[in-house]
Amino acid sequence: MIAEVLCIGTEILLGDIVNTNGAFIARELAALGIDMYHQSVVGDNPSRLKESLAHALSRADAVLTTGGLGPTYDDLTKKTVADYFGIGMQMHEPSVQKIEALFKKLDRPMTPNNLLQAQVPAGSTVFFNDTGFAPGIAVEQDGKIVIMMPGPPSEMRPMFINHISPYLQRKTGGMIRSKTLYIFGMGESQVEHTLRDLMTSSTNPTVAPYAKQGEVQVRVSAKAQSEQDALSLIDPVVDQVKQILGNVVYGVDIGSMQNALVQTLIEKKLVAATAESCTGGLVSAAITDIPGASAVFAGGICTYTNALKTRLLGVSEDTLTAVGAVSPETADQMAQGVRTLTGADIGVGITGIAGPSGGSDEKPVGLVYIAVSSDAHSEVKKLMLSRGHKDERESIRNLAMLNALYMMLTAVQEA
Amino acid sequence: MIAEVLCIGTEILLGDIVNTNGAFIARELAALGIDMYHQSVVGDNPSRLKESLAHALSRADAVLTTGGLGPTYDDLTKKTVADYFGIGMQMHEPSVQKIEALFKKLDRPMTPNNLLQAQVPAGSTVFFNDTGFAPGIAVEQDGKIVIMMPGPPSEMRPMFINHISPYLQRKTGGMIRSKTLYIFGMGESQVEHTLRDLMTSSTNPTVAPYAKQGEVQVRVSAKAQSEQDALSLIDPVVDQVKQILGNVVYGVDIGSMQNALVQTLIEKKLVAATAESCTGGLVSAAITDIPGASAVFAGGICTYTNALKTRLLGVSEDTLTAVGAVSPETADQMAQGVRTLTGADIGVGITGIAGPSGGSDEKPVGLVYIAVSSDAHSEVKKLMLSRGHKDERESIRNLAMLNALYMMLTAVQEA
Repeated sequence: MIAEVLCIGTEILLGDIVNTNGAFIARELAALGIDMYHQSVVGDNPSRLKESLAHALSRADAVLTTGGLGPTYDDLTKKTVADYFGIGMQMHEPSVQKIEALFKKLDRPMTPNNLLQAQVPAGSTVFFNDTGFAPGIAVEQDGKIVIMMPGPPSEMRPMFINHISPYLQRKTGGMIRSKTLYIFGMGESQVEHTLRDLMTSSTNPTVAPYAKQGEVQVRVSAKAQSEQDALSLIDPVVDQVKQILGNVVYGVDIGSMQNALVQTLIEKKLVAATAESCTGGLVSAAITDIPGASAVFAGGICTYTNALKTRLLGVSEDTLTAVGAVSPETADQMAQGVRTLTGADIGVGITGIAGPSGGSDEKPVGLVYIAVSSDAHSEVKKLMLSRGHKDERESIRNLAMLNALYMMLTAVQEA
Repeated sequence: MIAEVLCIGTEILLGDIVNTNGAFIARELAALGIDMYHQSVVGDNPSRLKESLAHALSRADAVLTTGGLGPTYDDLTKKTVADYFGIGMQMHEPSVQKIEALFKKLDRPMTPNNLLQAQVPAGSTVFFNDTGFAPGIAVEQDGKIVIMMPGPPSEMRPMFINHISPYLQRKTGGMIRSKTLYIFGMGESQVEHTLRDLMTSSTNPTVAPYAKQGEVQVRVSAKAQSEQDALSLIDPVVDQVKQILGNVVYGVDIGSMQNALVQTLIEKKLVAATAESCTGGLVSAAITDIPGASAVFAGGICTYTNALKTRLLGVSEDTLTAVGAVSPETADQMAQGVRTLTGADIGVGITGIAGPSGGSDEKPVGLVYIAVSSDAHSEVKKLMLSRGHKDERESIRNLAMLNALYMMLTAVQEA
């Protein structure tokens, strides 16, 4: 099945909202094994919507729309689709009752235009909206399907997951399951190069790498008649990828580096603490973004002055005078110092030059030292994180954060 | 002029990245007074790209593409556009030199495919890439324009602002200038309601509100023959908006709340420090994201345990026993304590329940106390930041961060 996404809404064309629906649906369709070659956005204009719909249906089996299902005059998706197929509209009684009941519950007067949301093209399949008013609708005719969903992501996403995805799985037969390997310390092109033979020889499951900032993920997806069958196709290939790539794989289906770190800390019953300079709190913010972090994170010290590095973390004044704040010695003393200060099992110290100013020939912008300290383990890494572009402060800080999380994760895994 | 955006990249069709370029360009084109009726996404496939390009050019005067300008085999935008117009490729010498110089600076071997990025269709206009390798390109023929930009937002955005926007302004005649008012503490619908008369009566300059997470911006844009003329149209309206909205306007063209804070600290020669619990370092990370923050930021303490709150920040054990860590008293003592610890002029203390667990009837998820302390000023605010949805941890933390920055900004402005 080839599908196409058509997002409807003048607010997208004006740039007032970012179209996150497109990416969400794209990912869900890819997971279902449904191909998509085109995505489009069109405004709340009947003739342009009709033209876009016709164009999409000329090249796809299924067109999924978002938006234009609300109660106001510019919500014209249903009418346009019904006209296109030459079918009339009818009231969907369960939706009428649901809308009336919701207004009663909210104790708000219901204006008649709200019931327009319960109108659907005759003979269509209706999907309940668990988090809003307008139901989703599928119209099938002449081997083509148009699936209409509401625009707000808070309504569209649960509807897709709970109702549209099962509907599409029934249409395509079978089910898709996937596992994602998380990789750090190897670039996308090298991952692709290393896995090329496996990627080209695998059709079910498929193996595909994706680059994220500073990280790479490899997704292994299989199509089968049952979850069990899918997993028995996936698991040996996941093992194969792990074997080929080695220890740059830091987790499977782990969500993020900070989640991997927090879960490993919980598992090992260890507590971490951070001492940051150039990252300014990004590492502690990332760790505490994970629910449950409070059990394994003592605290973070962000020292932006030498005096504070000495007073709080015990960085020696002699070190600061002799080799400066951006040095392996300072990073190491920060990591040890924050352990002493907080009583944590593992400490990280990060010091560097995020730019744009503050760099020199000897210590250029992008130079970052990261130290990890635990009872069993002590390590300092020197990183050059500039790629020579302008406005790199954000990217240098983010890469330093990722490297710090990764060094902590490795140390905790080995502890 | 009618323009259309064509984003190129299989990674968008697979949902691996959210297409933020579409919204950015849409907003910039709207500000330039250029109409857009369609946006599309197509994968790295030559025949489908060619078909999409032809379709877009059949209904628009200008097509702006993003993506497909890199050095690998699937980067085929330039070739497809050149073929469409029937023109050959040539090397752009300044780009060759720039790429060679960058590789020399990075001390990395340059593989020959990198120079493919310096190839452009003959006779085209080339736009420098200030933050990456691949230049932007405009090709004009038969009254149609195709403008190609790189895909990474960090490269596309500065290129659009610095080079593409002036180019389009020359094409459309006249120039557009705009100023943006930054608003905190009033929702988008209320801003829109309050400014409705001004918005509907203004055509040059136009007045348009945009919602960002927890913040609202109002952009005032004027079209004129010179910058001077544009500004003389804009400035009185900016003053009018300020007068209507009052003190919820915290800055004009200030970039972000953290930038407003850092610039005000620099101006007033004051130093700040942060003491965070539920925000986990987000506030210090936001402040230190601004270049030059080191002059006005002493440091940040993220205390995730009561013991550390007492030991580092001097929060009284009696307070913690009597009213708990999430209390106005604790927030206040954190704000005062971090000033004492770091010697900063202004301190902020943030404590709350980010969830998903840890809430109670008395202290529900979303309850956050923020205190600001300076010589002249001491204040604690109680905030309820939950909107009753699932998975609110990130949103509660971000809203707490914004509120903390805003309270600091207000205190520094009054200092």
